[in-house]
This record gives sequence, C-alpha cells and structure tokens, in this order.
Amino acid sequence: MRILLANPNTSADVTEILLAAARRAASPGTEILGATAPRGVPYIANQAEAQVAGAVALDMLAERAGDYDAAVIAAFGDPGLLGARELLSVPVVGLAEAAMLTACLVGRRFGIVTFSTGLVSWYRDCVDLNGLATRCAGIRALGGAFASLASVGRDREDALVAAAHRMVEEDGADVLVFAGAPLSGLARRVAHRLPVPVVEQVAAAIRQAEILASLDLGTRRRNPPKASEGLASPLAALIAGDPPPPGARRTPDR
Amino acid sequence: MRILLANPNTSADVTEILLAAARRAASPGTEILGATAPRGVPYIANQAEAQVAGAVALDMLAERAGDYDAAVIAAFGDPGLLGARELLSVPVVGLAEAAMLTACLVGRRFGIVTFSTGLVSWYRDCVDLNGLATRCAGIRALGGAFASLASVGRDREDALVAAAHRMVEEDGADVLVFAGAPLSGLARRVAHRLPVPVVEQVAAAIRQAEILASLDLGTRRRNPPKASEGLASPLAALIAGDPPPPGARRTPDR
Amino acid sequence: MRILLANPNTSADVTEILLAAARRAASPGTEILGATAPRGVPYIANQAEAQVAGAVALDMLAERAGDYDAAVIAAFGDPGLLGARELLSVPVVGLAEAAMLTACLVGRRFGIVTFSTGLVSWYRDCVDLNGLATRCAGIRALGGAFASLASVGRDREDALVAAAHRMVEEDGADVLVFAGAPLSGLARRVAHRLPVPVVEQVAAAIRQAEILASLDLGTRRRNPPKASEGLASPLAALIAGDPPPPGARRTPDR
Amino acid sequence: MRILLANPNTSADVTEILLAAARRAASPGTEILGATAPRGVPYIANQAEAQVAGAVALDMLAERAGDYDAAVIAAFGDPGLLGARELLSVPVVGLAEAAMLTACLVGRRFGIVTFSTGLVSWYRDCVDLNGLATRCAGIRALGGAFASLASVGRDREDALVAAAHRMVEEDGADVLVFAGAPLSGLARRVAHRLPVPVVEQVAAAIRQAEILASLDLGTRRRNPPKASEGLASPLAALIAGDPPPPGARRTPDR
Amino acid sequence: MRILLANPNTSADVTEILLAAARRAASPGTEILGATAPRGVPYIANQAEAQVAGAVALDMLAERAGDYDAAVIAAFGDPGLLGARELLSVPVVGLAEAAMLTACLVGRRFGIVTFSTGLVSWYRDCVDLNGLATRCAGIRALGGAFASLASVGRDREDALVAAAHRMVEEDGADVLVFAGAPLSGLARRVAHRLPVPVVEQVAAAIRQAEILASLDLGTRRRNPPKASEGLASPLAALIAGDPPPPGARRTPDR
Amino acid sequence: MRILLANPNTSADVTEILLAAARRAASPGTEILGATAPRGVPYIANQAEAQVAGAVALDMLAERAGDYDAAVIAAFGDPGLLGARELLSVPVVGLAEAAMLTACLVGRRFGIVTFSTGLVSWYRDCVDLNGLATRCAGIRALGGAFASLASVGRDREDALVAAAHRMVEEDGADVLVFAGAPLSGLARRVAHRLPVPVVEQVAAAIRQAEILASLDLGTRRRNPPKASEGLASPLAALIAGDPPPPGARRTPDR
Repeated sequence: MRILLANPNTSADVTEILLAAARRAASPGTEILGATAPRGVPYIANQAEAQVAGAVALDMLAERAGDYDAAVIAAFGDPGLLGARELLSVPVVGLAEAAMLTACLVGRRFGIVTFSTGLVSWYRDCVDLNGLATRCAGIRALGGAFASLASVGRDREDALVAAAHRMVEEDGADVLVFAGAPLSGLARRVAHRLPVPVVEQVAAAIRQAEILASLDLGTRRRNPPKASEGLASPLAALIAGDPPPPGARRTPDR
Repeated sequence: MRILLANPNTSADVTEILLAAARRAASPGTEILGATAPRGVPYIANQAEAQVAGAVALDMLAERAGDYDAAVIAAFGDPGLLGARELLSVPVVGLAEAAMLTACLVGRRFGIVTFSTGLVSWYRDCVDLNGLATRCAGIRALGGAFASLASVGRDREDALVAAAHRMVEEDGADVLVFAGAPLSGLARRVAHRLPVPVVEQVAAAIRQAEILASLDLGTRRRNPPKASEGLASPLAALIAGDPPPPGARRTPDR
Repeated sequence: MRILLANPNTSADVTEILLAAARRAASPGTEILGATAPRGVPYIANQAEAQVAGAVALDMLAERAGDYDAAVIAAFGDPGLLGARELLSVPVVGLAEAAMLTACLVGRRFGIVTFSTGLVSWYRDCVDLNGLATRCAGIRALGGAFASLASVGRDREDALVAAAHRMVEEDGADVLVFAGAPLSGLARRVAHRLPVPVVEQVAAAIRQAEILASLDLGTRRRNPPKASEGLASPLAALIAGDPPPPGARRTPDR
Repeated sequence: MRILLANPNTSADVTEILLAAARRAASPGTEILGATAPRGVPYIANQAEAQVAGAVALDMLAERAGDYDAAVIAAFGDPGLLGARELLSVPVVGLAEAAMLTACLVGRRFGIVTFSTGLVSWYRDCVDLNGLATRCAGIRALGGAFASLASVGRDREDALVAAAHRMVEEDGADVLVFAGAPLSGLARRVAHRLPVPVVEQVAAAIRQAEILASLDLGTRRRNPPKASEGLASPLAALIAGDPPPPGARRTPDR
Repeated sequence: MRILLANPNTSADVTEILLAAARRAASPGTEILGATAPRGVPYIANQAEAQVAGAVALDMLAERAGDYDAAVIAAFGDPGLLGARELLSVPVVGLAEAAMLTACLVGRRFGIVTFSTGLVSWYRDCVDLNGLATRCAGIRALGGAFASLASVGRDREDALVAAAHRMVEEDGADVLVFAGAPLSGLARRVAHRLPVPVVEQVAAAIRQAEILASLDLGTRRRNPPKASEGLASPLAALIAGDPPPPGARRTPDR
Repeated sequence: MRILLANPNTSADVTEILLAAARRAASPGTEILGATAPRGVPYIANQAEAQVAGAVALDMLAERAGDYDAAVIAAFGDPGLLGARELLSVPVVGLAEAAMLTACLVGRRFGIVTFSTGLVSWYRDCVDLNGLATRCAGIRALGGAFASLASVGRDREDALVAAAHRMVEEDGADVLVFAGAPLSGLARRVAHRLPVPVVEQVAAAIRQAEILASLDLGTRRRNPPKASEGLASPLAALIAGDPPPPGARRTPDR
C-alpha cells in the first residue's frame, strides 16, 4: 500500500520530521510518499494560511492522483481535508482528526498541547468543526517565541511535558495529543514521563489511513463533475470528474 | 465609502445579479465595486470548491487592498471569510453570516431555503461553523436540476416560495433567508407572499459591511507577519504585513 | 427615520449617556427619541428587575407606537425584547443582542466586560437565550461597589481596560463588548488601548435598528389579537391588534 | 403548609381547574391558596403576554408575601419564575419546570403535547431556557381553533391522546407531559390509554413545592436591596429588602 | 409507603449514614428499608466499579421486588439506575439525578462538591448522561487521601465548606450539592455557613421517590420479556416478565 | 498479536457471525480469540440488559487477562467498555465507538441502521455518551418482529438497504453503519448497492484494536487498587491491582 503524506507547509525539514514519524509507524508493506507544499508559508498557524495551504494541498493531491492508495494531510488543523475527501476516490485523513478520534478510543477527554499560543484559536476551531468539543479537556500552548521550527519539539521538551502534566491535573485530560507537525515524534520520546497515554499524531494518521484503505467501504460519494477555469490541470481534472491518467492505480490494495 | 463585492464564483452574470441587489441596498454615498473570480468554478457548491474559491477570494481582496473600506465575500457559505478577516485592516463580511445574524435580530429561528440539494451539506457546515445551529429551523432545497444558474431564482420562484411556506408551517421558522448568490433579489420580489419576514442576503451583507466600516472598532487583530513563497504578490504582501501601496486608502471613511 | 431609544431604567442621567452615544452613532437623517422608564429601578441587574422593567418597556413602546420607525431597548440584557418584537409592526433591537451579533461579524469569540459582579448571572442567561454560548469567550466583571452609576465608566476606566486585557490574553476573546448602559461611550474612549476591536453597544444597536428599518423585510408576524384587562390602554390596544391612532406613522421610511 | 397557586392568566375558570388538580395532588396538611391575575390576558400564549403576566405574577406573590410557605406559578412557560425566585424567601416553582424535571426522573426523553400551535414557540423557548433540549423528544400541538379555554382539554381529548401516541411512536418519547393550564387533570383521565407514563403538570408542581419547602435548603440568595419608584408597594418592599409585615410567616413549616 | 434504599456499596457503615439521612427526610408514613450490596467494593468511584455495582443493584432490587413502592439507588453516580427503571413496575430514583434535578428547581447553576478527586471523572460523566452540563457550574473535589470513608464528611468538613465557597464565588454556582454517599447529612450541618441553598442528596432522593410513587403516572414502559441464563432467579424473573411472587405488593400506596 | 473478541450476548451463533467478520478483517499475524457470555441474555437490547452484560464482560475479560494484546467488546452499545478500559493494561474497543469514530474519518454525518426498533433508545444513548450527536444523521430501525437473530441480516437484507437509502436521501447521511452484532458482515454484502461508504462495525473494531495495541501510547491510567468482596476472583484481582498470573503476556507485541 502507498500512502501520500502531503505536508501543506513549505518547510522541507518539517517534512523530514513527519516522514520519520510516519515510516516508524507504518505497517510492513506500507510505502510512504512524501510531498512538501511548493508554495505557501513555512508553518501554517491560522485560518488565512490554512485557506491558502488547503487549496495547495488539493493541488498536491490531484497532481499525484492514482499514485497512492490513501493520503494524509500532514498539518494539525487539517487544511483542505473536507474538500480532498469529496474529490478523491481514495481515503484522505487529517493529522488533527486522526489524533483526536484515536484519542477518543483511549480516554474520555483528550488534552491538546502545542508549542505556540498563536495556534490555539485555529486548533479550537478545528476541535469544534469535528464536533468534539465535549470530548476535549482543553488546549494548552507555550508562550514566547521559539528559535527553530524544526527543533522546537526538542528545545522546549520539558516545558511541553510540564504543560501536559497540567492538562491532566488541572483540566482532567485522561489522554494527550502533542499537536503541530514540528512535534511529531515527541509523544514517543516523552510518553514514559506522563501519567496518561499519549497519541502520536502522525502514527495515528498513518494507521488510520491504512485502515480506511483496507476496509471495504464501498462507493465514495463524489461531487458532481463540474467545469472550471484557471486551475492547475490535475485539480481541474478531478473537479471535472475526468478518469485518472492511464497507468494510475485506481483501487486500494486489498 | 467604497465596498468591494467579491464574487468568488467565476460567473460574471451572477456578479451582475449580486451587484444589482447590492446597489439597491447600499446607503447613499456608498459605492459598490464588483469583482468576479478570475479562476475556479461557475458556482461553488461544496467544501472542495469552497477551499479553492476561498483562496482565490483572498487573492481578489489582496489585489485591491487599499481601494475599499469594507469587503463582502459574495457566496453563501462564505469561502475564505475567516482568513480574509485576519489579513485585512478593513472589515470583511460574508453573505451567509450577514444574512443569518441579521435574521437573528428579526426572529427566534431562521429557515434557509435554497435551489439545489447539492448545497445543503455545505450550508449546514456553515451554520455550525457560525455556532448558530440552535437558531436555525432547518435548510430546505429544491430537488432536480436547474436550467440556468442566472435565472434559477425566477424560473423556480413558485417552488421556492412553496418551500419557504413549509419552513414556516412545519419547521417553525419565524424569519426566512433565500440562500445562494443566484437567489439575490428574490426576497424583495416574494416577501409579500410569505407570512414572516425575509432577509435579503446581499442587502444584509452590504448594510452590515457599512456598519462595521463606520463604527469605531479600534485595532483589528492581524496575524503576525510571515514570509511566504510562490503566492501572488499582493497576497504575499498582506501575509508579510507590508504597508499598503502608496495612494491606497488605509482608513475607513468616518 | 426616527428611532425610539427606550431606557427601561428609571435613571434619567443614564438616558443622557445613552442618547449621547446614540446620536454620535446615528446616520445622517436619523432622529433619536429618548424615553426613560416612568417606574421601576434605577439600574436593572437581575431577572426580577428585568421582569418588571420589560413590562414597563412594552408600555413605553406602546405609548409611542406610530411615532418611530424602529426602537432600541437600551439595557444590556434586553428586558422585554422578545415580547416587543411580537407586538410591534416596526423593528425592535436590544443592546445586548445587537452588540453580540455585531461582534460575531468581527471575531470568532467575543468577551463581555462589565462593571459589577451582580450583573454576571443575568448577562450569562442573556448569552444563552441568544444561543451564542459557543461564540462567547466569557464574562468578566469588576468586584466591589461603585460610587455613581452615571460615572462608573469613567471612574473605573483603568480597571475595565485591565479586565478587557485579561479577556483577550487568558480567555481568547478576539473582540470585546463593554456591557451595561452606564458603559456607553467607553468603547470609543479606550479602543486604542486594547489589542482587539471593541464593539460599542449603543452604536451597534442604533445602526442595526437603522438596517432593519430600511430593509424590505416583508410581513412581520404578529401575535393574534387578544382581549386583555387592566393594562395601560396603549399596550391593550397593541395586544388587541387595534389600528394605530390617526396621524401615527405605520410604515418605516424606505 | 400553605402553598400559593398563582394563576398569571386572568381566567377565573382556569384557576378553578388548576385548584382542583392542585388539591387532588396535595399532601395531607397542605393548604392550597388560589389567586387569579387581576390584570393581563385570559390565556398567556407568547413572550409578549408572558412579559406582562410575569410582572403581574411578581405583584401577586409580593402582595401575599408571608402568607404562604411556597408558591407555584401556574402557567406552563413559567412567566416571572426566575425573578420570583430571586425575590422571595420561600421556594417558587413553575408548572413547566416542575413537569419537565419530574419527567426526567421517569424517562430519558419527555414529549410535550399541547392544545394550540400558537403555544409551541414559547414552550420551545422554555425548554431551552431550562437547558433541557437534549431530554425533550419534541413538542406537538393540535391545529385549529378551540371553542372554550376551560373545556378544551375535554373537547379535544381524543385528538390530544392521538398526538401523544405519535410522540411515543414517531419521536421516541418515553414519558409525556400535557402542557398548558387548561389541560390540568387530563393526565389523570387518559394515562390508562397511553403506553408510557404521563406527568400531571399541576401535581408535579405542587409536590415539588412541598419538597422544597420541607427540605433544609439553607440561605436563599436574594438580590441586594434596591430602591424603586412607581411599583405596587408590596413589590417595592420586596425589592427594597424590607422585612415582611408583622404577623406574616417567614419560615417554612418543618 | 415503603421505600427501598439500596446501597450498591458493600460498606454497612455507609448504609447507616444513608439510612439516618433518609429517615430524617422521609414523610410521616414512609418506611425506609435499607440494603447493603452483598458483593462489590466498599466505595464505588469509577466506571468499572459502577458497572459491577449497577448489576448488583439490579439483583438487590429484583430480590426484594414486591416489597417496596419505590426504590432509591444510594450512590452518587447512580449505578444501574437506567436499567432498574426499565425493569421495575415501581419508580426508581438515583442519588445524583435527584439531587441535580432538585437543585435545578432552586437555582440556575448547581455546583457539586465532593471529597476525592478520584470521583470527578465519573461524576462528570453522570452530569453529561443527565444532559445537565449547561446547568452545572462545575465539580470541585478535595485532594489527598482520607482516613475513613464513614467519617470523611466530618473529618474534612471545613475543607468541604471552603470548596463550596469557591464554587459560589469563582464558578458562579447559586445552589450546591455535596456529592457522595459518605457526605450524606453534611448539607444539613453546614448549610448555615454557606451563602446559597444546599440540596441534601439523600433527602432529595427520598422525597422525589415519594412523589413518583404517589403520582398517577400510568403505565410504566417495560422491556419486552426475554429468556436469560445464569442470572440470579429474581432478576431472571424480572427480565422474563414473570408475575411477582404471591403476596408481594404490586401497586404503590395512593 | 492476539485480540479477544468478547461477545457479551449468550448466543453462540452470533459469536460465530462476529468471528467470521473479525477474521476476515484482521491483519496477517493477528489471531482472534472468541468468547461468548456464560450468562445473561441472547441479545442485549436495552440499558437493563447492558448493565448485566457489561459486568459479565468485565468477568470475561478478567478471566482471560494476560492472554490477549487487545480486546473488543462485541455488542453495538458497548456494554462494560468504559469500565474495562479503566481496569485493563491493554486496549479495549467497543463495536459502536469503533464504527462511529471510523465513520467520522469518512464522512461528516453517519447514519445508523438497525434491525429492531427496540434497540433505538439504547443506541441513541450510546451516540450521546460518545459526544457524537452532532456527527450523527440519525438512527433508523426496521419495525416488526424477526424470525431468527442469527439470520435477520440476511432475511431482512432488502429492507435494511432500503432504510439505508432513506438515511442518505432524507437525513443527509454521507456514511453508513449497520448496527448490531447480527448485522456483522452485511456491510460487505450490500455496500455496492448504496451510494455512500459503509463502515463494517466488526472490521472497524478489530482494526482499531490493532492500531491501539501497536501504537506506543505509554502509561494507561488505571484505577487505584481496591479490595472487593464476592466477585469472581479474576475480576477481584484486577480491581485489587494484583499482578497478572505467571506466564501471562503483559505487553502488546510491537
């Protein structure tokens, strides 16, 4: 099985972090394809950037359509996810939804911990959009600036663990998620320091994508075909309901 | 005061319908500038098309930044709205939110009537995103295909009025909204045939934009400046927090 | 256009504050008529006082019926609003609903700041009654007594600004409302000291009333006519569905 | 123990129906005092009438303060209830809240059946105000006019039972409430014809009032004393926090 | 009337505390029968223990079926309640639901105070299961271990009162519940030290059970008869829909 | 990896249906162990039966503790799930939660279709307990009796498909779940007849259990050790926090 891990951020070093976590989590026989956004911002942090990055994500997925059996949109906040799911004939999973829904199988109230207060408003909208507000114990973020996006997970490791402890003790979280692509891999490093289970966002997304690709889910509902103008041709083809290019895989491995 | 009415659909004839309704509703002294999406689909109907159109809307607004005192994103469903609000120093209003919030000032439960079942899922997400589910009596849509986007409001007028009557009698709506850009102007034509008030979506949006532009709201919170790559330069400038071009208006008329 | 600003409190000095803010906000051509409650309490702070004041507000509006094109019930908490809307053939707007719904067009989560803890429970009920709990970041109030109702907005200005800062930083509010008739005008004075937009309650109410009066909303649903006994005759006439007195205006200016 | 049953409608014949149901339900040793609204409408059906009637109810309760150990506001919709609870030192119970909360002890989802569609909007607001929307299976009402308020419960008995059956079969109600003062006593007459329990609104209210009066609940939180002007003197005395008149009972029987 | 107070904990000394509170609260003519769980844990504190204890509670109620007119499941959290209500022909009331619903008749937002943080998660689930989250101001618990289950209410009395004060001042509770069987009787002892009313859980449950047993509620909906295997024979008989044993009372005293 | 599929119903033929579906869905290398409830009812349909069956499920899981790496409680409605999760050191998944949360990764609103109206109330409580009401388009059930539990899925196949079509067309479901152990395998047979994806409940549960067992989730929060009396000794040992018997596996395969 081939899973496309599409990083809608433009930071190639964050893609590397994501791919490392994804390959560690993938089942034997699953191949992970990486992709980094060709345009946009290094790190999506709000609705404006997510609007642009989500459209870029659709282009990234369309361009590679037929080459993968499932896709993961690899930014917490899931830019472009709902649209991608409508367009593609294979499953698409978001980092945030996968982490949160997996956490719901582990505990009653998940706590989200992230590295910058600038992300909180967007993440809260994401919790609400998933209808999971009653399952969420809260969102805690570190204040202050960070030196490097790629290393913030290591640089602020102790502060992130301390915030996670407070989520458990003060907010009643019984399962945790470290949120944001740069924190990929952190769960595995610090789970032993925390009193409740921690769901690793990338591992959850890859494994959920594997499940969806392997289940016999039947017909995916697709949007009705529609003409468009001015869009990149792969995306235009998807919107037009054109058949995938010759040679492309159309069906998940089963 | 100048208000940019940005139609994120590519249909210029829909822009004409929208502009006619907007100019009818505008206060004396308000000038309406129209814009039609340079790329995308003729009529946005779902999350995938809204993802793309919302990014196009940001480009449209960025390109004209400094030329208007407020903007209206003129598609029910409000593609790109949350992001636009973060980026611009002037108010931005969506057709759906303006119609729904205005309706909340008129009745306890608004009913939404539209011309195609293909729109219902997206509109329902929009109601939820605005946190207005408890104020919404429901969404009703006409089944079947329609001949022409630009004339569907006139062609199906009786069926739309009948659906509106059912919203009042069966669903308890005490105020109505005809939703979707092609239905602009319908409210004015049929209000006398209905037993409860009808909020005209474009009129509501234009008038709310005028209010926001004229109130002394103080500092708009803007996203922190960020570098980007590969984006159209006006949008990149907004994301970078660059000062507007010389000669552009920066402050609303007061 | 004539708008009746009905202060359901008995404090004439608060009416003056309200009128000053209203006249500052009104569009050219809008005339503001003021009225102070002839009976009740100087400052409504709870459900008991709102029950009485709301009935007085209906009398005030009934007595002047035909003399105005729209009315504002000028107490945050909106006593009598839902009833007034059922009885009158012209739009009626409440200070709280206008401020909150306008704030929803500016940000995702509004914060309410007021001058006395004794108001919080009533204001919270008001947020809930409007179905806006998910859009409200919280309510913060100053503790302690205040020397003068009419001057509390100036006397405690710094403390109110400090509470507003905490709403933004600790509760995630991205737009603010200073609530309570005595705080009218405060938004304008302190907006420059705050990092997010501030909606002035009276300005929002007056401008929303203007919109509603000028839109072609069609038939207002009225309660069926009913006989009553012992009520002041203008209110009894409204409840009885009697035609307005000769010479009264029946239709909004358009 | 003495319980004041205050009918905020002006219909003395409805008071008789209420009193009959109340006396049938009261425990031995409980005396029921009846009172009919001295002004207002014969039958409250909407927010406007409830606003006026609620203020009249406060006057009725204030006038007799000291003469009763608990009070029931005997209109479904509970006009004036929240305010009365703040003002009085004895418990006050509403017909709607008592019926709904009692029903919550009997089943998972209560269904409300009433005799006129004109009541539905107000009753729905009442369910919401009590925060019980998730426990309510719905509200069903008979269409058409009714000949006599006092006899509608008997005249339309079969239609009401049929509507109740539909609530159970189609809406999943597992407990029922016949709502509206004129339907008092209906539950007792028709319970044997229905497949789920039926809560009699007046019986529930009287028995709940008895409980509250007999429990050691401790200090009731009262509003801070406040001067007023132009109100009936007993109500003004309550708002002013004046001691009850000499000879009045201040403490519930225990 | 005979009410079975079934303690699903195995602690006989807690049963004594419960019985003392129950007998103090019961109306004249009500006889309270006590029962202690024959197996399980001394004090139920979580979902696992509640699952077992709830099944034991069904056995306890089945074994004594016909001997009582109503039953109270005497653990806050109400293990087995929903099932018991389906099986028995007499009313069954839980300590938590009775306390919370009674509190809703006294104030707008109840606060729950308990003696161990280990209970909070289970109690929160109980609030949600009752659909009362919007009426609940929060749950506060004492940290640290306690010396004796039977005496914790007296040993930590001051700390519990302090927590209750904070619920009122910081969380806006306007009525309080001390939750957990070992705190039975505490409300009566400390109500005078608190600024808002306090609902005693056992008193509320006994009085609500009395009401339900005395009201003419009509047919209780019962589960369809079903064969089972391996269950204690009284429970098997209830599930099989067998008639109660000869000599047993089937109908509440009225 | 070994997964225990515990059928809390006593029907061995339903266990066979479940095992067939489980083995079809399991990954290579996963061994499925089946278990049928030794006491209880053939088919759990309500809260009473779920209370008993959930306690039996805890016994079943405790008895085999150490023999499996993850467990599935194989009844839609998930009896005993929350408790099992607290007690065991390995993951436990319920049929309902797994199906619903997986469906949330596929569509915006899942529809539940089942074979008997007698199940609807319990399933609705289960949706609410999972906090997923806003993601659920509704629950539809076949009326009438069924001949055989084991064959109802085949006997009523057309009717179930028809109900599923109505969920899509009338209720807006964009993904479906056939609910109830006897319907295991139905999704695979009929998915091609339906216009939206169908999640197979057993496949979802087995695959989610595999994920949870293979992820590095860290410390599972366990209840504090507690003495009990009269319980089956394996369950008593779990509650007492005793170490698993020698030779038992304690750690998931990784």
